[in-house]
Amino acid sequence: SGLVHVKNPHLDSMEEDVLYHLDLGTRTHNLPAMFGDIKFVCVGGSPNRMRAFAQFMHKELGLAGDGEDLADICAGTDRYVMYRAGPVLSISHGMGIPSISIVLHELIKLLHHAKCRDVTIIRIGTSGGLGIEAGSVVITDTAVDSSFKPRFEQVVLDDVVVRSTELDKDLMEELLACSKEIPDFPTLVGHTMCTYDFYEGQGRLDGALCSFSSEKKLEYLKRAYDAGVRNIEMESTAFAALCGLCGLKGESSHTPAL
Amino acid sequence: SGLVHVKNPHLDSMEEDVLYHLDLGTRTHNLPAMFGDIKFVCVGGSPNRMRAFAQFMHKELGLAGDGEDLADICAGTDRYVMYRAGPVLSISHGMGIPSISIVLHELIKLLHHAKCRDVTIIRIGTSGGLGIEAGSVVITDTAVDSSFKPRFEQVVLDDVVVRSTELDKDLMEELLACSKEIPDFPTLVGHTMCTYDFYEGQGRLDGALCSFSSEKKLEYLKRAYDAGVRNIEMESTAFAALCGLCGLKGESSHTPAL
Repeated sequence: SGLVHVKNPHLDSMEEDVLYHLDLGTRTHNLPAMFGDIKFVCVGGSPNRMRAFAQFMHKELGLAGDGEDLADICAGTDRYVMYRAGPVLSISHGMGIPSISIVLHELIKLLHHAKCRDVTIIRIGTSGGLGIEAGSVVITDTAVDSSFKPRFEQVVLDDVVVRSTELDKDLMEELLACSKEIPDFPTLVGHTMCTYDFYEGQGRLDGALCSFSSEKKLEYLKRAYDAGVRNIEMESTAFAALCGLCGLKGESSHTPAL
Repeated sequence: SGLVHVKNPHLDSMEEDVLYHLDLGTRTHNLPAMFGDIKFVCVGGSPNRMRAFAQFMHKELGLAGDGEDLADICAGTDRYVMYRAGPVLSISHGMGIPSISIVLHELIKLLHHAKCRDVTIIRIGTSGGLGIEAGSVVITDTAVDSSFKPRFEQVVLDDVVVRSTELDKDLMEELLACSKEIPDFPTLVGHTMCTYDFYEGQGRLDGALCSFSSEKKLEYLKRAYDAGVRNIEMESTAFAALCGLCGLKGESSHTPAL
């Protein structure tokens, strides 16, 4: 049917669904009217960048006006920002798995309540590159954890549930084909490693704490490279797991910082 | 000596330390001049709330001006905000352990470079209450994980290191004594449970995914209550672990949402 699946039997019996962190709700907002025609969602960490992306999409799509005055749909909260340009939503997710998980739960329910069909979701963002040219784009074939395994461990109450981190292969091929149409746009496909920490978890030597040597860091990053990892960030496994479970065609593409 | 400890032998040999997510650095900013007299740091999730808190402190401390035009010291980045009011810094940390870990690594280095002494850090924020009156304040005696254990598991490269989540007992007593001086300010001491997820991890029945029954949820929350947990949030174990290791007197106090 192309609809977004929520996998929660309790939702049907709720009189109202409040999307707390988006400042939206089924009673306070007409979600089908506001969002029913959404076909693409792009998510990224930084609020300013997701605003700039919405403005860029506004211009690319040739929509009326210069797009400079797009309104933040989530202006009632400072947790996340959300802008739309035609059928495209652009949403910030902050940094790290817990932060992206909150917004994805509420986004998935939003798309469900709005009866959206055939939605494609793409995470765009920065990342640390591994043995690749700075400024190139990595399209994720598989999101892996810090042991290079394609899995996301979700704590449900106090049980640990292991979830698949597969992304949409067709979408991956489409994105790769698009990149080839643009000159001087170095793009590659590879595994993206997702960590819970920016400093100790990613082998950085410049955190407040660092207990490993430069050699040990390089040995770890080399093992990651040999396992197919081409970039490192902090959200992709949770993104892949949640999108996969809810029937959203998801992909993740990142530019290693220059 | 009261100084903040960084535990990273690599830092001494770096020519410059860039605090990426704060848009500050040792070459671009005179950190001792800007921050050397800081004695208190308050951190909380929401940028707007931490701005309002700085304005409140500005007035409470009787500083010149109305405090309405406080400048965001991290205005060059949209990752976090930072305001100061006299000897008090007020900083946002976003949501979840990865997000607070990044800002704490950089804050600890900032206080170290600025040669601050005897700094007290307090996390203030909202939380979910457990069997307590809405609007009361929970002062954390121990931060626990989703198995109610006083520990924080940090992935360092691909090893898991278990860290203590002890907070400063004297500071806890001081905060409790302060609360008693204020009429109608219900305050209690209890364990704070820290989770990686707002929906499935905290027993909520209204996420996009929910695989447990209402009974199973209540059974889990009752076990948490019996283990001493009085509120649930998403940052306290990482906060306690990092502050403890770096010699910062840390406490955490939360208001369950109304």
